[in-house]
Amino acid sequence: MSQPSDSSSIVTAAMLAIGDELLSGRTKDKNIGHLADVLTLSGIDLKEVRIVADEEDAIVEALNALRTRYDYVFTSGGIGPTHDDITADAVSKAFRLPCVHDPDAMRLLGGMYQRREMEFTEARQRMARMPEGARHIANPVSTAPGFIVENVYVMAGVPQVFQAMLDNVVAELRTGAKMLSRTLPCPFGEGDIGTALTAIQKAHPQTSIGSYPKYDGQRFSTEIVVRARHAEDLVPAAEAVMLMVRELEEKRIPSNVSPDA
Amino acid sequence: MSQPSDSSSIVTAAMLAIGDELLSGRTKDKNIGHLADVLTLSGIDLKEVRIVADEEDAIVEALNALRTRYDYVFTSGGIGPTHDDITADAVSKAFRLPCVHDPDAMRLLGGMYQRREMEFTEARQRMARMPEGARHIANPVSTAPGFIVENVYVMAGVPQVFQAMLDNVVAELRTGAKMLSRTLPCPFGEGDIGTALTAIQKAHPQTSIGSYPKYDGQRFSTEIVVRARHAEDLVPAAEAVMLMVRELEEKRIPSNVSPDA
Repeated sequence: MSQPSDSSSIVTAAMLAIGDELLSGRTKDKNIGHLADVLTLSGIDLKEVRIVADEEDAIVEALNALRTRYDYVFTSGGIGPTHDDITADAVSKAFRLPCVHDPDAMRLLGGMYQRREMEFTEARQRMARMPEGARHIANPVSTAPGFIVENVYVMAGVPQVFQAMLDNVVAELRTGAKMLSRTLPCPFGEGDIGTALTAIQKAHPQTSIGSYPKYDGQRFSTEIVVRARHAEDLVPAAEAVMLMVRELEEKRIPSNVSPDA
Repeated sequence: MSQPSDSSSIVTAAMLAIGDELLSGRTKDKNIGHLADVLTLSGIDLKEVRIVADEEDAIVEALNALRTRYDYVFTSGGIGPTHDDITADAVSKAFRLPCVHDPDAMRLLGGMYQRREMEFTEARQRMARMPEGARHIANPVSTAPGFIVENVYVMAGVPQVFQAMLDNVVAELRTGAKMLSRTLPCPFGEGDIGTALTAIQKAHPQTSIGSYPKYDGQRFSTEIVVRARHAEDLVPAAEAVMLMVRELEEKRIPSNVSPDA
């Protein structure tokens, strides 16, 4: 059920990544960047990300802050079968819903383990738990479903599963005006271009111009990213940036050896 | 000025990563995982991370929420010379301090550009701005300092600079009891071990036992991480986990083909 996109509106989202292992450094998160890529391509603005530990109060508080503020919230982690997987309980508590063994999920998982002649242990049954009435998110990798309550999409932490679940929900999301962007390489450090870039930003208020320093261990250069909802705003601003870079090159400012961080 | 560590206390921290590019997917953050590693090794518990856009209100609100709740807050990003670098202004606003061109930072940067026979542009002078009275964080990579206000450490977003700045402040941080940990590989999926692991966790309440599914594209296995502040708590819990894994292996449960996410 693909929702029509509304090219005049802005749709916002937040992510809540859940797991002690992300905060101890044991696991380096890969889901935030992937979600950011997918949402940006879809015309949904990711506005905030939070990472919290496997602690019920922390999850409940963050989830309630985010779900009331943004159109969508996507969570990762904590929906496996072990005692430290408490996301289903925390999401239920945030919505003041009972956390139940969902009958459809019990059938789905029970059938799968039966076909594999494996015991449907109490631990495995934990993966069927979700807030009463939640909709499933199909999990083609390992069966145990994610779930949706109102505007909150609860998905697994294992990146392959997170990505597969996201693929299964992205088509149903309401999307807004896509942010168009143009990335312009610039051989100069930010200190050389900052003043001129500020003037260009002021002259093109419908755009958002970012400059991102790159450091290769010896020299700084810059990538300038011009973003706008509409091409008629984007193109003249990008042309102004390119003109500025060309003029600096003609002056041969040797500033790519400058230490502008 | 290295602070003595207090092996009985718990010291907490949060991170605030600032930048549109992290939320658009353009830049994949590398600083969160690095900070997590360094703090864990230092005996400081990273409890929460937030990523926000280059928007003053969002930065101020997140910073005020985090700095009142945790012992330390570390920020990354937004302290360069261009118009979209607004972290100094936002931190000043959060602390209700004027944002000024710091005299020492002006001398430091002015002298550096003079030696390099480069113009100390208005944009470059932006890098000397910080809340009045802030202490510097030395930047051995590209000179422009980070800064410290009370318990908030403001650092660059470029990973090489972030890491160098962190190296320069970590020795002065108050540290608590280091979290000890033992990582135990387990060839079984979480569904096979969940029930037994819950029992072990209950029997060893001074430990925190996490299990992390790994998926290689075909099979799930698990890494079990036992954590505790004291070795006398850690060792018996880790031994109980190893015994459980051995007993499962003796039963030859073929569960590493199980789809436990």
